[in-house]
Amino acid sequence: MVTTEQTKVIGTRPIRPDGFDKVTGRALYGADFEMQGLLYGAVKRSPHAHARIVRIDTSKAAALPGVKAVITAADFPDPGTATTRTYRGVEPLHWQLDRIIAGSVALHRGHAVAAVCATDAHVAEDALEAIKVEYALLPPVLSVADALAPDAPILFDNAATAEIKGLFDPIDGRATNIARRATLDLGDIESGFEAADVVIEQEFTTGSAHQGYIEPPNGSALWSGDGKLTVWTSTQGHFAIRQSLADLLQEPLTNIRVIPMEIGGGFGGKTIAYLEPLAAMLSKRSGRPVKLSMSRTEVFEAAGPTSSTVVRVKIGAKRDGTLVAAEAHLSFEAGAFPGSPVTAGAICAFAPYDIPNQYVLGDDIVVNKPKVMAYRAPGAPAAAYAVESVLDELAERLAIDPVQLRLKNAAHEGVRRAGGVAHGSLGCVEVLEAIDASPHYRSELEGENRGRGFAAGFWINGGNESSAYALLNPDGTVSLVVGSVDIGGQRASLAMQFAETMGMPYEDVKPQVSDTDSVGFTATTGGSRTTFATGWAVYEAALDMRRQLEERAAAVWEAEPEDVSYQEGGVIQGPERDGERLQITLKELAAKLPGSGGMIQGRASMNPRGVGSAIAAHVVDIEVDPDTGKVEILRYTAAQDVGRAIHPAYVEGQIQGGAAQGVGMTLNEEYVYDPDGTMRNASFLDYRMPTSLDLPMIETILVEVPNPGHPYGVRGVGEVPIVPPLAAIANAIYDATGLRMRDLPASPTVLLEALLDQAEGSGD
Amino acid sequence: MVTTEQTKVIGTRPIRPDGFDKVTGRALYGADFEMQGLLYGAVKRSPHAHARIVRIDTSKAAALPGVKAVITAADFPDPGTATTRTYRGVEPLHWQLDRIIAGSVALHRGHAVAAVCATDAHVAEDALEAIKVEYALLPPVLSVADALAPDAPILFDNAATAEIKGLFDPIDGRATNIARRATLDLGDIESGFEAADVVIEQEFTTGSAHQGYIEPPNGSALWSGDGKLTVWTSTQGHFAIRQSLADLLQEPLTNIRVIPMEIGGGFGGKTIAYLEPLAAMLSKRSGRPVKLSMSRTEVFEAAGPTSSTVVRVKIGAKRDGTLVAAEAHLSFEAGAFPGSPVTAGAICAFAPYDIPNQYVLGDDIVVNKPKVMAYRAPGAPAAAYAVESVLDELAERLAIDPVQLRLKNAAHEGVRRAGGVAHGSLGCVEVLEAIDASPHYRSELEGENRGRGFAAGFWINGGNESSAYALLNPDGTVSLVVGSVDIGGQRASLAMQFAETMGMPYEDVKPQVSDTDSVGFTATTGGSRTTFATGWAVYEAALDMRRQLEERAAAVWEAEPEDVSYQEGGVIQGPERDGERLQITLKELAAKLPGSGGMIQGRASMNPRGVGSAIAAHVVDIEVDPDTGKVEILRYTAAQDVGRAIHPAYVEGQIQGGAAQGVGMTLNEEYVYDPDGTMRNASFLDYRMPTSLDLPMIETILVEVPNPGHPYGVRGVGEVPIVPPLAAIANAIYDATGLRMRDLPASPTVLLEALLDQAEGSGD
Repeated sequence: MVTTEQTKVIGTRPIRPDGFDKVTGRALYGADFEMQGLLYGAVKRSPHAHARIVRIDTSKAAALPGVKAVITAADFPDPGTATTRTYRGVEPLHWQLDRIIAGSVALHRGHAVAAVCATDAHVAEDALEAIKVEYALLPPVLSVADALAPDAPILFDNAATAEIKGLFDPIDGRATNIARRATLDLGDIESGFEAADVVIEQEFTTGSAHQGYIEPPNGSALWSGDGKLTVWTSTQGHFAIRQSLADLLQEPLTNIRVIPMEIGGGFGGKTIAYLEPLAAMLSKRSGRPVKLSMSRTEVFEAAGPTSSTVVRVKIGAKRDGTLVAAEAHLSFEAGAFPGSPVTAGAICAFAPYDIPNQYVLGDDIVVNKPKVMAYRAPGAPAAAYAVESVLDELAERLAIDPVQLRLKNAAHEGVRRAGGVAHGSLGCVEVLEAIDASPHYRSELEGENRGRGFAAGFWINGGNESSAYALLNPDGTVSLVVGSVDIGGQRASLAMQFAETMGMPYEDVKPQVSDTDSVGFTATTGGSRTTFATGWAVYEAALDMRRQLEERAAAVWEAEPEDVSYQEGGVIQGPERDGERLQITLKELAAKLPGSGGMIQGRASMNPRGVGSAIAAHVVDIEVDPDTGKVEILRYTAAQDVGRAIHPAYVEGQIQGGAAQGVGMTLNEEYVYDPDGTMRNASFLDYRMPTSLDLPMIETILVEVPNPGHPYGVRGVGEVPIVPPLAAIANAIYDATGLRMRDLPASPTVLLEALLDQAEGSGD
Repeated sequence: MVTTEQTKVIGTRPIRPDGFDKVTGRALYGADFEMQGLLYGAVKRSPHAHARIVRIDTSKAAALPGVKAVITAADFPDPGTATTRTYRGVEPLHWQLDRIIAGSVALHRGHAVAAVCATDAHVAEDALEAIKVEYALLPPVLSVADALAPDAPILFDNAATAEIKGLFDPIDGRATNIARRATLDLGDIESGFEAADVVIEQEFTTGSAHQGYIEPPNGSALWSGDGKLTVWTSTQGHFAIRQSLADLLQEPLTNIRVIPMEIGGGFGGKTIAYLEPLAAMLSKRSGRPVKLSMSRTEVFEAAGPTSSTVVRVKIGAKRDGTLVAAEAHLSFEAGAFPGSPVTAGAICAFAPYDIPNQYVLGDDIVVNKPKVMAYRAPGAPAAAYAVESVLDELAERLAIDPVQLRLKNAAHEGVRRAGGVAHGSLGCVEVLEAIDASPHYRSELEGENRGRGFAAGFWINGGNESSAYALLNPDGTVSLVVGSVDIGGQRASLAMQFAETMGMPYEDVKPQVSDTDSVGFTATTGGSRTTFATGWAVYEAALDMRRQLEERAAAVWEAEPEDVSYQEGGVIQGPERDGERLQITLKELAAKLPGSGGMIQGRASMNPRGVGSAIAAHVVDIEVDPDTGKVEILRYTAAQDVGRAIHPAYVEGQIQGGAAQGVGMTLNEEYVYDPDGTMRNASFLDYRMPTSLDLPMIETILVEVPNPGHPYGVRGVGEVPIVPPLAAIANAIYDATGLRMRDLPASPTVLLEALLDQAEGSGD
């Protein structure tokens, strides 16, 4: 572990401020919202994957005693041709509305078509039954192959709306199910491959996987008669929810207050509005507060998972292992609305490596499934799975150690990636060297049916806007107000950066996440941005406070401001007087503030450049049970460039969590669809996420290559650990069995079948 | 009405942001607090006015099913000899604890001796019954006369604790019931009276009156197992409640968060903790959230009213009306703990006038009644009642118009008041001239049993600390966060000052009152300080935002910061470029902020000097019903120096409200005690506050003498209107009947008796 400078708070492992309430059940999550007069909402959802909505009759439901409102898409203001800005760019606003509640067509099973609220949840359920919807069935499109078939039903007439600049690359002007196409290139791909001694090309597929957050999406709303709307919800980004509500309801921002409840997991899946606009409209119609929350089945049927993907990768190398050309074609399911993370996948695919000639094509393909949502390093795991599997094959073909192959081609600062962007500071070499030197990689793996796999992964990380507000109390403690939802210990990592900057104890800083009316605009917690960007904002807020403390000390001492300076350890020093240097501690000065002009507050808003990308390298040992096809993870080590580990235990936790979710994607988790588009396993009983019994303790190696673009060297750590596991485990299965798993998940059924085929083929 | 400069927002009458929720019942007050697992608390109170507590047996109560905790004073940490700072200065902390829950002695009927919490309110009531308290009765002290009797029981051994500096002026070193004595002088009182041609000396008494807030005091608390305490309460000062909790519970400030609920009236009565510490301790003991709220009887028996007072006033004048000497001796009941507002009464008594020789003595006297609390200009009404009655007598004696007598002696800037402090800017002459010129005072009053009275009044007003935090939204609207509880339209008056400073519409500013963790330290809403001091803080926060907007515009334009300036109407102007001046509106620039470095926040903390005192002058016409003694208010006009009326309608409302409460003090409201110290009329049925049927529309004259100590000329307006009514009405009764009412309230019973005595005396 590289430590770059002496810090007092950063690098320690204090207790998180929200921990106690969370483990004792005191923390208030979205579904804990209560208010006098609260109504219970429920959502009527399409049983069909693709159907025109001919008629909705809500009259019987509305007449039920206890039912206070029934709404459909028609209750919302017509979005017309308005557009809205999402994290993917500008989109037609009607997509957002249609996604939340279907207009004329139900585009996936589980698509909302109406919503009700009633005095109790049972009446609300009865009301759903009483809503009569007449559908005209349309043929469903359920896979990339379905979507691209020549006679495929077309979900959106994208050729017709292509005038919305940048939204589409319609293929030859035809309407297709390819909603968007991204192309990234570098160098000259053709001559690159010509120069290669070895070329390997393979195709890989991955299935959808759900973020699997414990707490289902929810939303409660109170729309007061004076037009003021208050919304309580568990979300990664309450400012984004506010914007969404403002757009959909056509209300000014200032009329809407979104209060973030604690969040029971998000992983990218809680970055958009699902139920909040419905709760708001139900409240407007009923005049009462309304709470909505999804069941687990609704989560699976309506709250987007990752993309199912088809990724074709072709890599060319010199005999000595030098990579000279790389090409990929990524086809990502977007679900029922455009917007898969295919561009991110395309950027990340070859990013760990210095490859002079690249061509990457990414297609965003709409199908009749729930809209996909971001899921931890969205797009990158599927891309890395394909690339790192091919590299494993290449290493074998060239008889080079797989880590050495990567090291030979490792990207570093200044190297250009697909699309031509040059990397900033990047710890790729350092991470690969760390894994190479690790006891795990240096150990021998013995025993039958066992194998070891290795893979690396890259994630871009994000910057974006953050605000911070810090209030000094008269006893020298500080309340630290931020707008970043805490999904993984950010209260601690932010309070630590603040305390470090002030030279005060961590325990004297009390962080809290405030609502949209109470703290400056702050972008969504996601893209591994929070400890970086909000961390920077709290650093600046501390500097703002320090400057004022210097000024105040100068005033108290009647000294020149330039003779006063804030020193390490929260001591303010002034000029010498009577042979002694004037000095006062933060606590002492805080006590003097009320009488000398009032308390002091620090504030800052940032939209920082200098985002540091992340690199991870994982090695895994597994054992395949030849009788069941079950893969057991024997040992797992994850090395990662963490920039600067503010709170090492939480960084380790992020790495372990990411790896665990990657294991689930690789071995267990799967959406099983009927031909009509009905998910057959929409419960946690049948959708099998790994549990603690499925995983060993995941070992972590924190490599600290400080990000020069951040005052404390922070780079995001939360997402990249999910990128390598798919390929690492698939490569380990190959090592154990000789089978290349090119379709994930490699569930026991699939692997057993492959083992049986292999045995048959080999004449066993 | 004097308007000093052109403003766009200040001086208009927009709708208050909290109005809709308040009139529709949506606003959440203290008793509306709900939480899962909430327990209901109740307080066991002493039935005796003065008794030693021999023993408390809580075992039966604790054993009742559903009871989760029973506490007594012994559950609180021993305050030892610690002191605490209140708005009256430093006090022993144990006074505060003893006030909230009795230690060894119950000092008034209704004094809390134990508290319980249970799963429902009925069980909690049963538990109170089950608590057995053994008392040893002590003789009660129920009036100033009782307290000063030579053999009076002594409530506190103040001679023994006199070493706490400044707390006592023990008379001759004896323990007495005089807890504190204030003396204020000016000039030479003896030679002053020697120079007088006329001297009048009279004694006056007033009874207690309750603030009569609609919402009883309350407090809910959740003490989490990790030591974090959250308290929800309706209070005028949540930061003061936090300090109180920190002191009493011996916890650091940072462990305590106080969330201010809406407040259903305060008038000074909700500036201290009553139930919050009990709720906190019950929560600590039970591990669950606990809610406490008083019944109306508890309000009367335990939540302090104004002082009962005895005030002796002696004024000497020259024949031409020039006042040359004034002396007063104020004896104020403090209730069961030291701390009556006698010093404020002493300061205000003669403050409207330029009297060269003064001597004022104020005694704070403990009695076995609930501790008195601040009530709108605390202390001043009783003092003004005596002074203005004597001036009325003097005017008659000298045959000078009562307004002219005051005008002749009116104080102005630079004149010293008792104690030697010189007045700042003061609109005394202007207000007296305004009332003199008013249609009401110029009109003739005709009819039998009718009379007109006049009186003036002074109030100091307060400054103290305030913070403000303003967040600019991307659409150019602003969330304005303040720590001042809104008891009378402050959200509006603060948003207006902010909007004015920014040159933006009032409707684009959304103010809110935040909790102790979410906004910088802000002193209690009281002392008519909020629109003044917090108004100044929001003004500074706007300037902070403007500076940053200038810097950002300069950055966007790539111009020199000194060439960019924020102009009226929210337009930022830059240098000329290509023959045209660069300019951008606030809204346009707000939209550009995310992409140019992030949003902008403004912040400020103030402890402003420059408090502007307030002067009021009221004239009232009444009619006395000779058969019942009932006084009917026929016409009432209140003129006041309001500095600058930010929102004239709310200023008028304050004046009308203050006058109405003054009418109640004068004619209706009364505490009726048994000899054993039991209040016999502890309900709103028997404690008769004036209703709308008792009052005419109170006419207001807003005199604007801008306070030079505030950027918008604001001086506090909320308290002074309660100062003149007592004397004005008493003087009107004299005018109507020839009877000087020297003891208030002048209830129908009292007045009828006086009329009958008068008739007897005159042989009628």
